[in-house]
Amino acid sequence: MTISESTASAPAPSAPALTDLRRRLGQVSDLHAAESLLSWEQETMMPQEAARVRGLQLSTLAGLAHELFTDPRTGELLAQAQPEDEADRAVVRVAQRDYDKATRLPTSFVEERSRAQNEAHHAWLDARQRSDFAAFAPHLSTMMDFARREADLLGYEEHPYDALLDSYEPGMRVSQVRSVFADLRDRTLPLLRRITAAGDAADYSVLTRPFPGEAQKAFAWRVAGEAFGLKSSFARQDESAHPFQSNFSRSDIRITTRVEEYWPACLFGTWHEAGHAMYERGVHELWERTPVSRGASLGVHESQSRMFENLLGRSRPFWGRYFSELQGAAPEVTAGLDAETLYRAVNRVKPSLIRVEADEVTYNFHIMLRFELELGLLDGTLKVAELPEAWNAKMQEYLGLTPPSDAQGVLQDIHWSAGLIGYFPTYSLGNLLSVQLLEAARQDTAVAAGLQEAHYGPLLAWLAQHIHQHGRSLTPGELTERATGRPLSADPYVAYLHEKYGAIYGLE
Amino acid sequence: MTISESTASAPAPSAPALTDLRRRLGQVSDLHAAESLLSWEQETMMPQEAARVRGLQLSTLAGLAHELFTDPRTGELLAQAQPEDEADRAVVRVAQRDYDKATRLPTSFVEERSRAQNEAHHAWLDARQRSDFAAFAPHLSTMMDFARREADLLGYEEHPYDALLDSYEPGMRVSQVRSVFADLRDRTLPLLRRITAAGDAADYSVLTRPFPGEAQKAFAWRVAGEAFGLKSSFARQDESAHPFQSNFSRSDIRITTRVEEYWPACLFGTWHEAGHAMYERGVHELWERTPVSRGASLGVHESQSRMFENLLGRSRPFWGRYFSELQGAAPEVTAGLDAETLYRAVNRVKPSLIRVEADEVTYNFHIMLRFELELGLLDGTLKVAELPEAWNAKMQEYLGLTPPSDAQGVLQDIHWSAGLIGYFPTYSLGNLLSVQLLEAARQDTAVAAGLQEAHYGPLLAWLAQHIHQHGRSLTPGELTERATGRPLSADPYVAYLHEKYGAIYGLE
Repeated sequence: MTISESTASAPAPSAPALTDLRRRLGQVSDLHAAESLLSWEQETMMPQEAARVRGLQLSTLAGLAHELFTDPRTGELLAQAQPEDEADRAVVRVAQRDYDKATRLPTSFVEERSRAQNEAHHAWLDARQRSDFAAFAPHLSTMMDFARREADLLGYEEHPYDALLDSYEPGMRVSQVRSVFADLRDRTLPLLRRITAAGDAADYSVLTRPFPGEAQKAFAWRVAGEAFGLKSSFARQDESAHPFQSNFSRSDIRITTRVEEYWPACLFGTWHEAGHAMYERGVHELWERTPVSRGASLGVHESQSRMFENLLGRSRPFWGRYFSELQGAAPEVTAGLDAETLYRAVNRVKPSLIRVEADEVTYNFHIMLRFELELGLLDGTLKVAELPEAWNAKMQEYLGLTPPSDAQGVLQDIHWSAGLIGYFPTYSLGNLLSVQLLEAARQDTAVAAGLQEAHYGPLLAWLAQHIHQHGRSLTPGELTERATGRPLSADPYVAYLHEKYGAIYGLE
Repeated sequence: MTISESTASAPAPSAPALTDLRRRLGQVSDLHAAESLLSWEQETMMPQEAARVRGLQLSTLAGLAHELFTDPRTGELLAQAQPEDEADRAVVRVAQRDYDKATRLPTSFVEERSRAQNEAHHAWLDARQRSDFAAFAPHLSTMMDFARREADLLGYEEHPYDALLDSYEPGMRVSQVRSVFADLRDRTLPLLRRITAAGDAADYSVLTRPFPGEAQKAFAWRVAGEAFGLKSSFARQDESAHPFQSNFSRSDIRITTRVEEYWPACLFGTWHEAGHAMYERGVHELWERTPVSRGASLGVHESQSRMFENLLGRSRPFWGRYFSELQGAAPEVTAGLDAETLYRAVNRVKPSLIRVEADEVTYNFHIMLRFELELGLLDGTLKVAELPEAWNAKMQEYLGLTPPSDAQGVLQDIHWSAGLIGYFPTYSLGNLLSVQLLEAARQDTAVAAGLQEAHYGPLLAWLAQHIHQHGRSLTPGELTERATGRPLSADPYVAYLHEKYGAIYGLE
């Protein structure tokens, strides 16, 4: 009796360690899912008086998830676990990477930063409303201090920004972003000049013709199901002030949208979120309730959302197929129009001050500008006080515009107030990757034939196979190389812009 | 340096223990709130494929809450905490009571029972559908075994059933329920006989006249706000298969309803849930995120829901005030009617087979029957195999009906399949208490004047002061004595039935 008890308390063999690890990761995943559900509900339907206690509940869930994951026992289980197949090896590898990152930041640092972020966020909301950059400046300085300290704590080889970028785009380096962005800038700025010189390619007043809100949402959702496979058996659509995608498992997905007079915001916004949703839907169920069960990076995620929104949703075959459905859903919008004129209208190129309203040609300039300024702020070559002036100079250089106020300039985005430094480049990396992936997929004849008819079944299958199913088991770099045969490049995107907009704007 | 560190690790004084205790209880409360929110969302809007993982998430939240609460550290903090005011004393008292109960059930018992409950629940669903009691019988035997073991683990003085009843109705004893129920039965059975002999008191076909679902919900919700104070700033209404109330804080309340051809189900069901909701809303905010912040018992809760649903919602002054609004909301229902005929129609008394469809006079017989059978099953004087026969005999004795099938008899309720033994009596205790409370409140002249006009502001204030605000800081017995000056009695309810239904059915 004594002997068997002593045996029972000896170090556990590897299989139980793996079982215990997956159980623990499952609990952490469940806590994060609950947190996401409470957040989604807060943004879509929560009664207003519930906000204060909801904040405490969210904080408890986040705190308990962090505590459970960074507990030394997680480290022991990671060290003891002996995975026997590729799926479990990926779980241990990804969890170990997350554990190392999470435990490198002391709790005191995380708590201090969380308080500072909260203050910075409220200061930003107020400063933006009053267009008063000076009121936000000290908070931005604090956020940049935290970013530098975080980079030091996480460690880096070439540039402190690499440590931050790695959280959003694992394995990506500043040097690579710089080179790709320089190429992109040099080859699209001349195109933009020629487009703006060419003048209007359509009557853009159709974009604000009457389209009742409920009809906008219903049309957008129906097409998201029919074209992109987003079904109500595993997903639902609600309204929120800022559209987002969220999910609590691969069969429990939410997207939000908003309704505006400018109706393309609802349609293309819905299809954008559908791209994110179908990525999360496609991750292999082997990785359910593990840290592998998410998109590989923000950039890869954005490649999926931008593909649905722009490469498909703003394509000529798409409107060839769905124009008649739009006629049924929005007779006032489509009166006197045909598919071709609608196609031209929704592909308007026009330099503008606000990133989230930018078109396919100008969008990346908004990102390059932010990337360059972030680098300067982080390495100290740009002072916070000089930021508005630097912002406005770059806006003039890239888009020929000067913001009439900081609210429409340097204060427009939430990211810096939340301490999200290194996040912006992923939007453009996603744009570039979207075309590179679509070009690779098009090598498959079924995919290519489907694209011509706006039948996306074969493309969805290709994406599921080459991108979605892998979750975080492959890095963005590995995914890109395997799916397209080469590293990320600006070439496909530049060629796409030239071909599409050369035709629309009649450039030789 | 060494000295101050040693000082810092000395036993903490009492104030920190109380602070730590409240922090821990807050986390437990947050986990329960998250669990409730995930459950509410599951019943109202979750995509169907999400069910399996949602079950795992709910289980994790429940498990972590239980682990955190029953951790020995909670016991230490309870022992060390030195509360300095009445509010904190109540927190420690109620938490200690819960802790003692929770730690008296071994984890292995809870886990075994949870698995058995799950099996019994599925067996019951299947057995009910096929009306096959024999298929459910072994599971019911198992549930009764668990109930007996639970009673032994929890301990009791007079009767094992007391240990179970105490979980739903703290301090209540079988002996008291028996005595109150016998009194109730002896004094309402003759009334019921006279009512059924009297024949119809109205044209009941109005109860299924056309009333579109959306209009039903909107009318019920608007009146819940106007009459009973349930506002969208802290509550919302959704649809679910079985109506319920749930809340995640006193400012974050949900009720559900369902739409049927028999439109009173939606209206009175909504006002029933509004009664539960306003109770939770009224608990003093001092007890936010503590175990005191809930209704005192199921019986007291039911007294509030039944008061809104029946004593107010089915009263003559109520329809005097709201009939014209119903005319606007449901012109087809009210065509050719006046307030008085509607009042009589919604107060139909008719013995029926199904508890949840029963009226104010017959409802309690459904409960007495279940209570008597539960007692027999628990103490072994009734065998599970004999249950259908015993059920049918009592249905004949009380209501003069014999179920054509077990699905409409002994298999109709979910409770026993979920191991909820000792729960049923609280429905009738709530009915009795509702009238006893309303009679006490009516001693206040403002309340009495308001009741005449269906202006319930003064009554709501009285309930908030005498019942709601106290949460679980007083036991049901203490609440009843303080609010009404005497223990729970059948007298007020019996008198209420005689007066109301004597008039409607023109007796003597």
